[in-house]
Amino acid sequence: MPTAPDQLRPLTFEIGVNRHAEGSALIAVGETRVLCTASISEDVPPWLRGQGRGWITAEYGMLPRATQQRKPRDITRGRPDARGLEIQRLIGRSLRQAVDTDRLGQRTIFIDCDVLQADGGTRTAAITGGMVALAQALAWLKKQGLIESVPLRPFVAAVSVGIVGGEPILDLCYEEDARADVDMNVVMNEGGRFIEIQGTAEREPFDRDQLAGLLDLAARGIEQLIAKQQDALGPDIMAEIIGAGA
Amino acid sequence: MPTAPDQLRPLTFEIGVNRHAEGSALIAVGETRVLCTASISEDVPPWLRGQGRGWITAEYGMLPRATQQRKPRDITRGRPDARGLEIQRLIGRSLRQAVDTDRLGQRTIFIDCDVLQADGGTRTAAITGGMVALAQALAWLKKQGLIESVPLRPFVAAVSVGIVGGEPILDLCYEEDARADVDMNVVMNEGGRFIEIQGTAEREPFDRDQLAGLLDLAARGIEQLIAKQQDALGPDIMAEIIGAGA
Amino acid sequence: MPTAPDQLRPLTFEIGVNRHAEGSALIAVGETRVLCTASISEDVPPWLRGQGRGWITAEYGMLPRATQQRKPRDITRGRPDARGLEIQRLIGRSLRQAVDTDRLGQRTIFIDCDVLQADGGTRTAAITGGMVALAQALAWLKKQGLIESVPLRPFVAAVSVGIVGGEPILDLCYEEDARADVDMNVVMNEGGRFIEIQGTAEREPFDRDQLAGLLDLAARGIEQLIAKQQDALGPDIMAEIIGAGA
Amino acid sequence: MPTAPDQLRPLTFEIGVNRHAEGSALIAVGETRVLCTASISEDVPPWLRGQGRGWITAEYGMLPRATQQRKPRDITRGRPDARGLEIQRLIGRSLRQAVDTDRLGQRTIFIDCDVLQADGGTRTAAITGGMVALAQALAWLKKQGLIESVPLRPFVAAVSVGIVGGEPILDLCYEEDARADVDMNVVMNEGGRFIEIQGTAEREPFDRDQLAGLLDLAARGIEQLIAKQQDALGPDIMAEIIGAGA
Amino acid sequence: MPTAPDQLRPLTFEIGVNRHAEGSALIAVGETRVLCTASISEDVPPWLRGQGRGWITAEYGMLPRATQQRKPRDITRGRPDARGLEIQRLIGRSLRQAVDTDRLGQRTIFIDCDVLQADGGTRTAAITGGMVALAQALAWLKKQGLIESVPLRPFVAAVSVGIVGGEPILDLCYEEDARADVDMNVVMNEGGRFIEIQGTAEREPFDRDQLAGLLDLAARGIEQLIAKQQDALGPDIMAEIIGAGA
Amino acid sequence: MPTAPDQLRPLTFEIGVNRHAEGSALIAVGETRVLCTASISEDVPPWLRGQGRGWITAEYGMLPRATQQRKPRDITRGRPDARGLEIQRLIGRSLRQAVDTDRLGQRTIFIDCDVLQADGGTRTAAITGGMVALAQALAWLKKQGLIESVPLRPFVAAVSVGIVGGEPILDLCYEEDARADVDMNVVMNEGGRFIEIQGTAEREPFDRDQLAGLLDLAARGIEQLIAKQQDALGPDIMAEIIGAGA
Repeated sequence: MPTAPDQLRPLTFEIGVNRHAEGSALIAVGETRVLCTASISEDVPPWLRGQGRGWITAEYGMLPRATQQRKPRDITRGRPDARGLEIQRLIGRSLRQAVDTDRLGQRTIFIDCDVLQADGGTRTAAITGGMVALAQALAWLKKQGLIESVPLRPFVAAVSVGIVGGEPILDLCYEEDARADVDMNVVMNEGGRFIEIQGTAEREPFDRDQLAGLLDLAARGIEQLIAKQQDALGPDIMAEIIGAGA
Repeated sequence: MPTAPDQLRPLTFEIGVNRHAEGSALIAVGETRVLCTASISEDVPPWLRGQGRGWITAEYGMLPRATQQRKPRDITRGRPDARGLEIQRLIGRSLRQAVDTDRLGQRTIFIDCDVLQADGGTRTAAITGGMVALAQALAWLKKQGLIESVPLRPFVAAVSVGIVGGEPILDLCYEEDARADVDMNVVMNEGGRFIEIQGTAEREPFDRDQLAGLLDLAARGIEQLIAKQQDALGPDIMAEIIGAGA
Repeated sequence: MPTAPDQLRPLTFEIGVNRHAEGSALIAVGETRVLCTASISEDVPPWLRGQGRGWITAEYGMLPRATQQRKPRDITRGRPDARGLEIQRLIGRSLRQAVDTDRLGQRTIFIDCDVLQADGGTRTAAITGGMVALAQALAWLKKQGLIESVPLRPFVAAVSVGIVGGEPILDLCYEEDARADVDMNVVMNEGGRFIEIQGTAEREPFDRDQLAGLLDLAARGIEQLIAKQQDALGPDIMAEIIGAGA
Repeated sequence: MPTAPDQLRPLTFEIGVNRHAEGSALIAVGETRVLCTASISEDVPPWLRGQGRGWITAEYGMLPRATQQRKPRDITRGRPDARGLEIQRLIGRSLRQAVDTDRLGQRTIFIDCDVLQADGGTRTAAITGGMVALAQALAWLKKQGLIESVPLRPFVAAVSVGIVGGEPILDLCYEEDARADVDMNVVMNEGGRFIEIQGTAEREPFDRDQLAGLLDLAARGIEQLIAKQQDALGPDIMAEIIGAGA
Repeated sequence: MPTAPDQLRPLTFEIGVNRHAEGSALIAVGETRVLCTASISEDVPPWLRGQGRGWITAEYGMLPRATQQRKPRDITRGRPDARGLEIQRLIGRSLRQAVDTDRLGQRTIFIDCDVLQADGGTRTAAITGGMVALAQALAWLKKQGLIESVPLRPFVAAVSVGIVGGEPILDLCYEEDARADVDMNVVMNEGGRFIEIQGTAEREPFDRDQLAGLLDLAARGIEQLIAKQQDALGPDIMAEIIGAGA
Repeated sequence: MPTAPDQLRPLTFEIGVNRHAEGSALIAVGETRVLCTASISEDVPPWLRGQGRGWITAEYGMLPRATQQRKPRDITRGRPDARGLEIQRLIGRSLRQAVDTDRLGQRTIFIDCDVLQADGGTRTAAITGGMVALAQALAWLKKQGLIESVPLRPFVAAVSVGIVGGEPILDLCYEEDARADVDMNVVMNEGGRFIEIQGTAEREPFDRDQLAGLLDLAARGIEQLIAKQQDALGPDIMAEIIGAGA
């Protein structure tokens, strides 16, 4: 269901969809749906103990019928999916950049991103939606009096861009992604700086000009995504966050 | 969030929530949410090949933060969850009773039941919701001309009953379940006959009279559940099914 | 090798068959043979530590050629057998009902039930034989002066019942089980109360009257099984147990 | 429970203990008990297909409480036990030497050796008992008319020897084995030739004279073991075998 | 052992180090050593069968003491290393861009990259060294008469760049990598076009100018790497390749 | 590439090939190449803690293309290789005999033996090369002042012998091993005493005279191997060791 090449697909966030989690958001980007929860644990990995700092980690999963063809569960195949592991490492690295873990206290926030329905861009949706769940969980910590201020740095969001049929495209759906010559996932922060760039020549190698065009598109998309994240969080949580000097 | 002891909790179905699956339903029972999809595969397990008959199988999973405490994924722990395996065997057995697999043709229907949020009764919700996804998938097969009639037998639904503080209770939420002396899951069909009874003395052994009281409650609940399943499927699908002589 | 429909199959216990275990029994029911050992460990699972209470847990296995066709070992297939996990959960729940774990002290008793030869009813034989090994181990604890009294509640035993060719049958052998319309495993205690009921419509759903008939048969069988358990334990161990006020 | 240094421990075979298996023997050596079954499969491993030859393979397991301390199951630990794998490779190699696989036809015989109770020498008991189960299964094949003659070569048996406190000992029990300076497992055939020698300096390296003393002891023991194997099989099976020119 | 910021570390290739493999190269980059082999298999993955096309796939491993601290083997930990899986996916994607798989015939080339000693840049060394092993294997296929021409596209090589202490650095050793604010792996082809860009803000997000500086450095390094690859292959293999119109 | 029947194949050691490891040696025996590292860890297995003694353990691996046919990695097959586990147990037992672990202090030395290229005799090469890496690591401990003297006992080395075409052969290459009737691995110490003998009749059982011939050959080979080990370590390390009274 392609949109205009330089447009984001329709995007909605449903905040607080999980009554148990400290933060949660169901993000819908086009036909892609990712359920993101942020779970706070009062512990850190062994290698970080005793430093007074916190940790952010992410896991990524797909329901078996999130895809056009049903895909067996990891536990049925007996081993983790390499693509999924690669994606969850990316989500974790990206969202750690949004938090000042020195001010988080000795606790871990698990960001679980589970794809309910996939139509391209699930990893970027997971980062963008995970950011919202994470912000909600941090505001919860503040409201509980467990931290003094919300340890957020500039917001982080992600989008895919690609070259399809010679044309640069923003926010590819599955059908576009399958035809792309170049596929790139870009993670940026509210200040327009790069957190991560992963660009792959799926068919045709690309040059510096093409790269520049893709990064322009991505920057424009991410600016809109961050505005929508903050809008979705609502004035109360945003006040909590801004009050914290983020 | 307990309701009256002899009442079902609020129940809704959202049909067709997954655009890829041949059948799908999001069932909400109280605060429990289970996403059920029915996926058709044009193959059967090896031991059934060449007999012209079909197969129904189920898988059950829980998102990590479906529960009050986050629970690590099976693939992280490196082995399937024994409780989950037990539940998916129950779902599969129960839903196979709803289908005349001789008329299904040589194909398998996978029923995936993934708990998005748990508040007691996830296995019975999975059966009740899985039934709806299954019926939708069978109607889809008929509409595609792949089968001549919908091979449904009487509808199947499930409910939990239990004895809490000496009192029989229908459709327990988590908090009730955790205090129950006796916990029982009952699967029945539209004709009021038993498909499966699993009753466990969690604290106090029970007698024949108590059993009778629980089964009365269950029967009343299941009658309502089946009416709601058929209501949720809507007149078109039900006409398809009834036309098939189910 | 069917017996009369309302009769138990020939039953023997061989007590103390394992020189290392604190309790052990080889139960033979018809052609089914299950070796049950009770192993005492001076520790409890992490979630139970510091409460001064004990724990009973069970594991169930089958030798590869216990069955008519050789079945590969779990470790060869690389994953536990779902049916086996379901059964060992049932054994553990059932035998925990036989023990007052508050009086056991902070220790775990592992009940290992390994099927040497299968001919139907292995899970009920495992419960019935496991009860004997467990009682022997508890008496051993008392004799060692590690506990003051034997923390046994009413004895527990289990039997299968089913409807085969329209007729209710007690204690099914494999050949009967394979033809059964309804298959039910019943766990009861010495007082005739239910610990667990698991009834499944393998072919035909069943009604309340049929259920009543099966439970009558089961109750009669279990009364005999418990008499034989106590007979097998012998007067010395029984005196130890009764002296303990069980 | 040590016997005289140059004596075998008390030895018994119980033939045909498993009603499903084509061959079976429960071997008791001192307090060690190993249940051996031979299962015939009308297939061979992929790399042997199409050559018209057969295959003999073995598996070795231990029940959790076969040992003084309960040992978790392989499937619970999630990986096979290295010692067990090493042993089953030895059993397989040894028993393959007892069969002319060219005359077996395209079929596999699985020898399952499961230790019910361990008191030293389980691997040699498994070989000695597995030989008996194997011979019974081969005789069964002949009786069924599936092979023309019993494809047995000279019988194979195994025994452990060791140096304990400076003295050579035949057929060590666990307590002796734990104190041994040198531990050696010897597999020989009816003609007194070696199939396998595995000698390990557990504490003190050994010299050629010590080796010679151990091999003398082993040869004497194995001669007796093979006489007992053939006695246990009985005149009928032995006639079948000898008639086959073994 | 840092070199000048805009210089590659000392680089050597040892070609043909494995006598069994169709292609092999030991690449040394600074203190990093990666053994790369190319193994030809006359089969393709199931999803590619019957299309007459070939496949290139890669695996990446590390010997336990390749690193400063010994790291347990994957098989000991019981699961693949997520970082390693991510890397081998990158190697496979990159080297597939160097081959015209339509002209390879229905065969798979496995590129195994095993790190004998790590000092930063193991994934880029694996791509650069794997390219050499791959080219040798393709030349071997031609020499054997199995393909008519060497199906090579422009050569591919990879290098890491990063920002350390505010300064852009080419080809980071471990000590530099551990201090980097930004870490980027760049894969380019002989024509100077991008195959893959993976840039990560390890500490500080980066902007477009910094990105441009890093890509300039990378381009200069890769030009030198490709010259050295071709030099290492030697005039005979290069003639074979160029004759093929690569 | 066979050599004379009573000759060792050409042998070289490259010491210190791994800059991270406390000890390392690349051993080349004929065309077999094994990279051996010794890694010191300041901890011991749980069952040895608090006794002030050390531990030596070994792991054995093969790169996928070490063999003529590429062999999938253990982690890809999902389970450890039984042959590899058996070999690493042998290496560990053998090298523990070379160390007085009472004088090692509470630390573990991991000997990793990874086969880069296989042409027969990889397990004996691993023991012989692992001994050199181990000696280097022990000398390192002494040089660091972590132990007072080098806790070495007599050196240990290993060689294979076999009967091929009726003739006894020393140090078999792969092609000879594949044709051998008898295959034997012998581990001896500098004093000419046996650490381990593992002899297997691959085709034909063997007698005492044949055994004697093989052990003579092995003894002669091992004497030469130990001379070469000590030569490779060089006068400095040997002085350290001898000064320590080994």
